[in-house]
Amino acid sequence: MSVNHPEGFVSGGVACGIKAGGGLDLALVATADGLAVPAAGVFTSNRAAAAPVQVSRRHLAMSGGRAAAVVLSSGNANAATGAQGVADAEEMCQTVAGGVVGTGQPGGAVAVEHVLVCQTGLIGIPLSMAPVRAGLPALLADRSGGRDAAARAARAIMTTDTVAKETVVSGGGFSIGAMAKGAAMLAPNMATMLAVLTTDAVVEPELLRTALAEAVAGSFNRLTIDGCTSTNDTVLVLANGRSGVRPEAAALTAALADACGQLARMMAEDAEGATKVAVVRVAGAASDAEAERAARSVAESQLVQCSLNGADPYWGRVVSELGSAGVDFDLDRVAVAYGGITVCRGGVAADHDSSAVAEHMAGRTVEIVCDLGLGSGSAAVLTTDLGYGYIDENRTTS
Amino acid sequence: MSVNHPEGFVSGGVACGIKAGGGLDLALVATADGLAVPAAGVFTSNRAAAAPVQVSRRHLAMSGGRAAAVVLSSGNANAATGAQGVADAEEMCQTVAGGVVGTGQPGGAVAVEHVLVCQTGLIGIPLSMAPVRAGLPALLADRSGGRDAAARAARAIMTTDTVAKETVVSGGGFSIGAMAKGAAMLAPNMATMLAVLTTDAVVEPELLRTALAEAVAGSFNRLTIDGCTSTNDTVLVLANGRSGVRPEAAALTAALADACGQLARMMAEDAEGATKVAVVRVAGAASDAEAERAARSVAESQLVQCSLNGADPYWGRVVSELGSAGVDFDLDRVAVAYGGITVCRGGVAADHDSSAVAEHMAGRTVEIVCDLGLGSGSAAVLTTDLGYGYIDENRTTS
Repeated sequence: MSVNHPEGFVSGGVACGIKAGGGLDLALVATADGLAVPAAGVFTSNRAAAAPVQVSRRHLAMSGGRAAAVVLSSGNANAATGAQGVADAEEMCQTVAGGVVGTGQPGGAVAVEHVLVCQTGLIGIPLSMAPVRAGLPALLADRSGGRDAAARAARAIMTTDTVAKETVVSGGGFSIGAMAKGAAMLAPNMATMLAVLTTDAVVEPELLRTALAEAVAGSFNRLTIDGCTSTNDTVLVLANGRSGVRPEAAALTAALADACGQLARMMAEDAEGATKVAVVRVAGAASDAEAERAARSVAESQLVQCSLNGADPYWGRVVSELGSAGVDFDLDRVAVAYGGITVCRGGVAADHDSSAVAEHMAGRTVEIVCDLGLGSGSAAVLTTDLGYGYIDENRTTS
Repeated sequence: MSVNHPEGFVSGGVACGIKAGGGLDLALVATADGLAVPAAGVFTSNRAAAAPVQVSRRHLAMSGGRAAAVVLSSGNANAATGAQGVADAEEMCQTVAGGVVGTGQPGGAVAVEHVLVCQTGLIGIPLSMAPVRAGLPALLADRSGGRDAAARAARAIMTTDTVAKETVVSGGGFSIGAMAKGAAMLAPNMATMLAVLTTDAVVEPELLRTALAEAVAGSFNRLTIDGCTSTNDTVLVLANGRSGVRPEAAALTAALADACGQLARMMAEDAEGATKVAVVRVAGAASDAEAERAARSVAESQLVQCSLNGADPYWGRVVSELGSAGVDFDLDRVAVAYGGITVCRGGVAADHDSSAVAEHMAGRTVEIVCDLGLGSGSAAVLTTDLGYGYIDENRTTS
């Protein structure tokens, strides 16, 4: 059910022709009654932010954190498209605002700032609006509260994804539905990670914003494939309050983090051309922040990723990345383990069962734990291997 | 002639058996008369610095910047090898100090701190000293002032290099000879870039140190393949003053930078598995430092490197990297050109001759110029493409 799981949301997905192959490429998530509800977003930190990012940010600021609908498209990022790109994204919101008629809405229609927009695809290609204009009425007509409609929405935002990514988290009297595409900071061929979450929790816009930011920091932002930050990365949440339950901040954050974490893991599993998922944990750092920095340095290393591809437990590269991560570091205190088997202790090679390590490295999921032996800071980052598949996906856009 | 080109230096290279294949793996560069002369080094910033880096740093500090010889080995980095590794590197220096008999040296032999050491190869493998001990007398016997001896030294430091890298810079009454292996921050399979320079200029240790640091910053440190910083990266220079010419600081720095720049270019041309060399220039930045940061961000991008491999002029990725480089940035002012042909102007696609761009992209050397349109800061960084070859080289150490 994903985004339609919480009561009071509708969604849909159609093919309008942005994608040359005729796949679903236009999606909608909206409140069933067309009313604007508390909403929040986390956007890319890239200063070359795409037009839809600019428009969604502005709409959330104008509305004080309220939205009735999100319109999404795939196949063209509408990034590096100048003023025309912004006008096009704005027009998409305007059309949807006119079509999402709120039963209790003064005047019957929602305001344009109550519609948010996400786009994903190639950067720097002018967006052709003819198919979008033709497709939006069909999209509005397609929306419904069923499982199939939510699945169509999830499929319509896919680019190089091989599977749609949906999840549901329930508990404490409220639920969250969510869908996503891409991989955070994987910045694939067709760019970007997008995620839309819906919840029936009762929550004010300000708490929703801080809870989402915290959930994203601990999930999508802990997944790193190549360190790239897309022009279009966006995570949005709408909270319609239908459950009547007002969760504590911690419970809300935990539930959002759970949903985001599940989606991040699905992204890693589906990362372009990857054959392995790796969890890099750093413990014993001077602080959690230093642990995250060190884990990210190891996880983003092309050399470590190549070793993963070759199932080679070359811990020397791991130590080298830790040493150049810019964190407190004393080689003599460092230990490194693969799959729980310590291969380096006190900064030098440790006797170990190499066949057990080889068996672990041969699996689909690899765990690398680095103990810096300095403090109590810890963090984990997800990554994948780097092999021919990544290059095949990314060497040309054609 | 390389390191033997300036009068009064000798060198040599032998095979002692560190490399399983029997290749040359032990090299020496020394003053012909065994006297300690002004010397300086630039070392890796990696906190997991290898044993030879620790020893060379300490020797230069002890001697006040003077050295009579450099001993180098390839096949094992002697990194993450603990106290034993440091003792082994120290023993290599001690043996060489005993063998480099200075005619004008009190007591006949040079002090241990007048010998520097560089090693390159796999990290985390204990160094087997038996072949080194057996090889050092042969190495000392091999040293001579001829072209062949210098060529043997240059070959003896190669790891995944396919060609030896030597150069000579002359002018202003003094000359520089230099050899190198690897690629700065390429951190290849067998790790590390090493370079040794010799000069007959008259120069005090302090000026030699600052001139070398400046030369390295503008050359080796402007070459980036995967952003990795090795545990063993080292650049050393010895100045014996034989020319009797004391160059101005600027002239000395320029000559050192010329030699280092030539070696850096050779490294890029020989980078593991690379099919293209790319020069990424950023102009119009708020400062030179911001220009360098932006150029490095583009040059290190796996996605940009994949596009180079596919000869795909996907400037959207270049703009995305510029936007996330953490520098002053206004997309509306950005222009991007490949081989002098502008493909993006004012942050949007620019009409251009796509067949001319395709022709440029198909070549061995690609030039990407990014104008941020903000100030007068500029910088250039060298990189290569990312293709199957890099993965083949780096996926396993065996």
